Amino acid sequence: MKIRIGIVGYGNVGVGAAKAVAANPDMELKAIFTRRDPESIKIADSNVEVLSIDSVESMVGKIDVCLLCGGSATDLPEQGPYFASMFNTVDSFDTHAKIPDYMAAVGAVAKNTTAVISTGWDPGLFSMMRALFEATLPMGTNYTFWGKGFSQGHSDAVRRIDGVKYAAQYTIPIESAVEAVRSGSNADFTTREKHLRECFVVAEHDANVNEIEATIKNMPHYFADYDTAVNFIDAEEFMANHTEMPHGGMVIRGGSTGEKKQVMEFSLKLDSNPEFTSSVLVAYARAAYRMSREGNFGAKTVYDVPLSYLALKERAELIKELL
Amino acid sequence: MKIRIGIVGYGNVGVGAAKAVAANPDMELKAIFTRRDPESIKIADSNVEVLSIDSVESMVGKIDVCLLCGGSATDLPEQGPYFASMFNTVDSFDTHAKIPDYMAAVGAVAKNTTAVISTGWDPGLFSMMRALFEATLPMGTNYTFWGKGFSQGHSDAVRRIDGVKYAAQYTIPIESAVEAVRSGSNADFTTREKHLRECFVVAEHDANVNEIEATIKNMPHYFADYDTAVNFIDAEEFMANHTEMPHGGMVIRGGSTGEKKQVMEFSLKLDSNPEFTSSVLVAYARAAYRMSREGNFGAKTVYDVPLSYLALKERAELIKELL
Repeated sequence: MKIRIGIVGYGNVGVGAAKAVAANPDMELKAIFTRRDPESIKIADSNVEVLSIDSVESMVGKIDVCLLCGGSATDLPEQGPYFASMFNTVDSFDTHAKIPDYMAAVGAVAKNTTAVISTGWDPGLFSMMRALFEATLPMGTNYTFWGKGFSQGHSDAVRRIDGVKYAAQYTIPIESAVEAVRSGSNADFTTREKHLRECFVVAEHDANVNEIEATIKNMPHYFADYDTAVNFIDAEEFMANHTEMPHGGMVIRGGSTGEKKQVMEFSLKLDSNPEFTSSVLVAYARAAYRMSREGNFGAKTVYDVPLSYLALKERAELIKELL
Repeated sequence: MKIRIGIVGYGNVGVGAAKAVAANPDMELKAIFTRRDPESIKIADSNVEVLSIDSVESMVGKIDVCLLCGGSATDLPEQGPYFASMFNTVDSFDTHAKIPDYMAAVGAVAKNTTAVISTGWDPGLFSMMRALFEATLPMGTNYTFWGKGFSQGHSDAVRRIDGVKYAAQYTIPIESAVEAVRSGSNADFTTREKHLRECFVVAEHDANVNEIEATIKNMPHYFADYDTAVNFIDAEEFMANHTEMPHGGMVIRGGSTGEKKQVMEFSLKLDSNPEFTSSVLVAYARAAYRMSREGNFGAKTVYDVPLSYLALKERAELIKELL
């Protein structure tokens, strides 16, 4: 019997999740839950029900794992505990500072369900690497670089400025810092020394571009601590070149064993950030399902899940083919 | 109370293991077991006993985990089951084709002990990446490259040729193949297209170097399927430049989610292969200890161990600081 998947929220990650479920032969998509009018979402596969998010309770027992594909700001703090009280869940809650509270809220209700929180690639795969690197090379320093990649949050922040029609913001690791870390130097970097920010902005006809540029560059938290390049372009160029969501990055640890230098690195180059995030969520859905079948309930993280639980292959096959 | 470690076999990996234990504040080295005369091994720390490998039974109950630092060809097939019958163990058994049999032999006796087999970096970290990459990006192909690095087995094979005094063999990934894989091309490569082999040889005075070179290049399994460069050097240059054991390599997966290309990569650049291997073994010793305390006995692999079991940090601290 296939693992029956529900998708909660049908934005970029939700759409990616539907594709990712299709790529895993041991899973089937049963339902999509949306806040929109369910009639507005058309799915080619007629076995998939599109339902209002208010009717989830009717699906208890018919879905093995719900993939929570909403945002961390407002959706997940509410949906995480709500869904985990009824279903096994997987989510990509990514407000790092609030993870312990979120985990406690989910764990409090996940009494007979398994809820894997904060997976994807960061938090998620990058978090795994930070811990794995630290454990296997105790003397050293972890560095995380993001990009080159499209940042939704920063793009939104620029888009909210008066006079901005469209905006795309890219986070770019500074090559000299990356190379220094890769060479095993355990230097301290300021925020400005690790990443650049580059914006592509389509301004309204009557907008003051100098003012927009100054507003971006001085925006606290988002841009003020970085060197930021602002490029004004026309709508045509924007649509042609800045509507994709590439991303990626690296976790690098430079360290030593006694006198010997040792460098570990994990990197991702993603043409679609939301689709890759979904693909990771789906692997953890398999793990959530398996853990729940063993009665291993509660809020879990990537640190709690043995890798064999993620794999389509049986453990013996993994050991024979990949060990 | 600290985790009490025993080291079995005091070669390159065993010496590295002693350093690695010292780098982990929750562990202490209790004993080194050797086949040599115990008197011949001098350890600065007077709390460490150096004992004959024949007297291990006297240490049952005094050691929490034994690190088996012998070789896979003859030491581990015998020592693995012998030690796992009495102690929690960790080893780096690396004869890939024989892992299932070795695991069965160890598992058969590890009734009240936890034995993590075949860890280190390959098998070990690289194996983890191959499985993690496949699970999180199902449509794609894994590639493993080794090097640039010193290969003990290949160096030994050259050293056994008549007329060879010293030899060092380096495995070198072919950059064009690595770049093709990194760009997301899922090409098929022959053995010759993925790696070069380079040998540095010190010949005996009266040796026929042309004959040595031909013998190396035509050696089946070791060299015949590769392009091999052979450099004859003098003993002085050899001692100056070819007595270290650097290694490393990459696991790269090129794949896609629907139409979007996604590339994952894990790489290691190691100035000391045996010291890094030891450092990984020691992290898994912590895991073996914790699993045994939970009654999770038997033969385990890197696929069975949640990452939180490797970490010095408490789970809550990991989640707060690294997730």
